[in-house]
Amino acid sequence: MSVDLAFEGPDDLLPTVAQDAETGEVLMLAYVSPGAVERTRETGRAHYYSRSRDELWEKGATSGNVQRVEEVRVDCDADALLYLVRQEGGACHTGHESCFYRTIDGEEVGERVFDPDEVYG
Amino acid sequence: MSVDLAFEGPDDLLPTVAQDAETGEVLMLAYVSPGAVERTRETGRAHYYSRSRDELWEKGATSGNVQRVEEVRVDCDADALLYLVRQEGGACHTGHESCFYRTIDGEEVGERVFDPDEVYG
Repeated sequence: MSVDLAFEGPDDLLPTVAQDAETGEVLMLAYVSPGAVERTRETGRAHYYSRSRDELWEKGATSGNVQRVEEVRVDCDADALLYLVRQEGGACHTGHESCFYRTIDGEEVGERVFDPDEVYG
Repeated sequence: MSVDLAFEGPDDLLPTVAQDAETGEVLMLAYVSPGAVERTRETGRAHYYSRSRDELWEKGATSGNVQRVEEVRVDCDADALLYLVRQEGGACHTGHESCFYRTIDGEEVGERVFDPDEVYG
């Protein structure tokens, strides 16, 4: 039985956390539409919905830094998701492994694993 | 220098992930207002903003299951936060350690660590 997600319609979005299944590192937070969840489950690769571009996207489609999804979890209220993933390259467009590479004081604590100019340039 | 968070005003909310600083487990996803971030930093205990009750709340104020915040991180766009915490008891009101205790197929994979009837009853 699949959990009934708290989408209020086909255009509604829910926040989704991507976590490295191996290291436990929280890689990013993005949003999913019902269609993005469906594509993720069909392909085994993480899909999200971009609020700025207003479109469904596959993580890594441009950069090659895809996320292979080992498990999708839902929270108690079914209004947030957790993707447990194997991350190719780094998750962040800045070249960092995780988008959460800074403390709130601006100290850089996360590792940079690729050169964004080479990947996106 | 503090990172300039992407709040669009004093009532704006940003999604925040709480992660167990020791085990790496993703515990919950909730929302923060500018005031909630401020209270979190002042007290060292996780504060959030409840969208349903429309109020700032301290995690664990009722249950005792407080979160001591070791570090606050922000993502690349400064529109999501990550609290690295020491969780007292469990994070979820269902008694589970993490709110993400189910797979999307409804399989229970997370551990139950307290009896909610005893804590909230």
